[in-house]
Amino acid sequence: MSSEFDLIDAFLAPFGRGTGVVIGPGSDCAAVEPARGQRLVATTDAVVEGVHFDLRRFSPEDVGWKALAVNLSDLAAAGARPRWFLCALGIPRKQRAEAVARRIARGMAALARQSGCALIGGNVSSASEWSVTITALGEAKRPLARTGARPGDALVVVGRLGDAAAGLRPLPHASGARAQRRPRPLVREGLLAARFASAAIDVSDGFLQDLRHLVDSSGVGAVVECSSLPLGRAARSLPDGMELALTGGEDYALVLAVPRRKLAALRKVVDCAEVGRILRGSGVTLTELGQPRPLPRRAGFDHLK
Amino acid sequence: MSSEFDLIDAFLAPFGRGTGVVIGPGSDCAAVEPARGQRLVATTDAVVEGVHFDLRRFSPEDVGWKALAVNLSDLAAAGARPRWFLCALGIPRKQRAEAVARRIARGMAALARQSGCALIGGNVSSASEWSVTITALGEAKRPLARTGARPGDALVVVGRLGDAAAGLRPLPHASGARAQRRPRPLVREGLLAARFASAAIDVSDGFLQDLRHLVDSSGVGAVVECSSLPLGRAARSLPDGMELALTGGEDYALVLAVPRRKLAALRKVVDCAEVGRILRGSGVTLTELGQPRPLPRRAGFDHLK
Repeated sequence: MSSEFDLIDAFLAPFGRGTGVVIGPGSDCAAVEPARGQRLVATTDAVVEGVHFDLRRFSPEDVGWKALAVNLSDLAAAGARPRWFLCALGIPRKQRAEAVARRIARGMAALARQSGCALIGGNVSSASEWSVTITALGEAKRPLARTGARPGDALVVVGRLGDAAAGLRPLPHASGARAQRRPRPLVREGLLAARFASAAIDVSDGFLQDLRHLVDSSGVGAVVECSSLPLGRAARSLPDGMELALTGGEDYALVLAVPRRKLAALRKVVDCAEVGRILRGSGVTLTELGQPRPLPRRAGFDHLK
Repeated sequence: MSSEFDLIDAFLAPFGRGTGVVIGPGSDCAAVEPARGQRLVATTDAVVEGVHFDLRRFSPEDVGWKALAVNLSDLAAAGARPRWFLCALGIPRKQRAEAVARRIARGMAALARQSGCALIGGNVSSASEWSVTITALGEAKRPLARTGARPGDALVVVGRLGDAAAGLRPLPHASGARAQRRPRPLVREGLLAARFASAAIDVSDGFLQDLRHLVDSSGVGAVVECSSLPLGRAARSLPDGMELALTGGEDYALVLAVPRRKLAALRKVVDCAEVGRILRGSGVTLTELGQPRPLPRRAGFDHLK
């Protein structure tokens, strides 16, 4: 196995230097220059081998891309502009670890470039399995949170549901495989939506479960009309596509609560689907073509079960 | 095993709310209000079961304390004031995981309170072993880095060397056990030293190895007089204490390069030892009572070996 320091050099190679970076990777700490009048928005999320990915199905480049994507999706839900990130790697004591790390970096750097987010620091440790834990930092004047949804708000989805779960099936549709391995964080859409929405969350654990987090945090309820949900192409091709859209997870779509009077303005700038509304009360109920539809037994993903 | 969301609630319980926190734990992202005219300083570091700790020797409270301490030590080396942190947990699928997580949180919260650093977000994932990956955020007007040491600077150590390694020996001296399980990050000392030092690093991987990082990054060399090194009490009680001080790691002392003219002023505010000087050239040489001393075969810890 290569030394820690060779591996770090190999990992850093494909990344460019970001803006506002005073001290980049290589010192004990990074230092950056936050913009005036902006809040600093921070999130951390990990992908772990055997839990979130499997190197027989994912290329190392996919792993690097996805590790950053899931964090950028959180920034998107807050309506924040990605600026910088730190990356902690867990590396198994195996042959060719440096080659795998190099490829993880390559996938991560491709998304970092696209999204204007610079790697400023990190850590490596040996561990039983590969893991990539990223902390992403962004900026927003008025960051969105899960709280803030009001009765009467429209419930809106940006992006597609069900494809990431469809991508885990044998011989998946191309759109499902892509959604699972190379999810596209809706950063631009989140930045635009933040001007209109009262609350937001991204769909990481399953639409229903994440919507429940949003309504619980806001102290409201919601009703969802299932026929309005924007199923992805892979989900639409499966008999249980609606189930996957409701509970599948990892779609990295955005769920927004939007005051009615702002809905038309939002629609002009972001392609989105109105899927229901926020109500007084609590919990989520489903309808299908206006008729009550029972809730699925399992709402989404629990990372410890 | 308890659900992800119960475990998160249990983990968050002992932490207070920090200052400058706009959105705390519980949304997709945290949001904070950085102070004007300060650089944001960021670092990430992980502690992994079986690599950095062993639950037969460490209590879960020790693990939580140490995971935060190693990050605060990096902020200390940058001369930054700790403000906020995020914590990603890797949790094995075991009985009583929630109880262990609760105890990790308790140890971490004790140090968070002492150091004025607030937990603002995190993540949980199942994994093969326990791991705690923290990203700490601080603020500094003029953060120190490894670069910046100049020939002629005095080489200064704040804190004690060798005790953490001594603490891994059977039946360790109390001072060694404490240094290993509850290292005290030198935050106050780092803040004071930043007014005088030209470069700094903390001793995480071993004094010699970390000093080499500092001189390599600064493009200089250094000579160290071993008899001036501030050995801790546990290291002093061992026949190979000097070896441990040079290569042992995890001491979380600070190594500073300080312009000669500022040394007296630094000594007035921080208890420190002058241990050598920065030279033109490259590499580190050792003397003992003025005579050359050979370098140890191994300079410090490699996280992948």
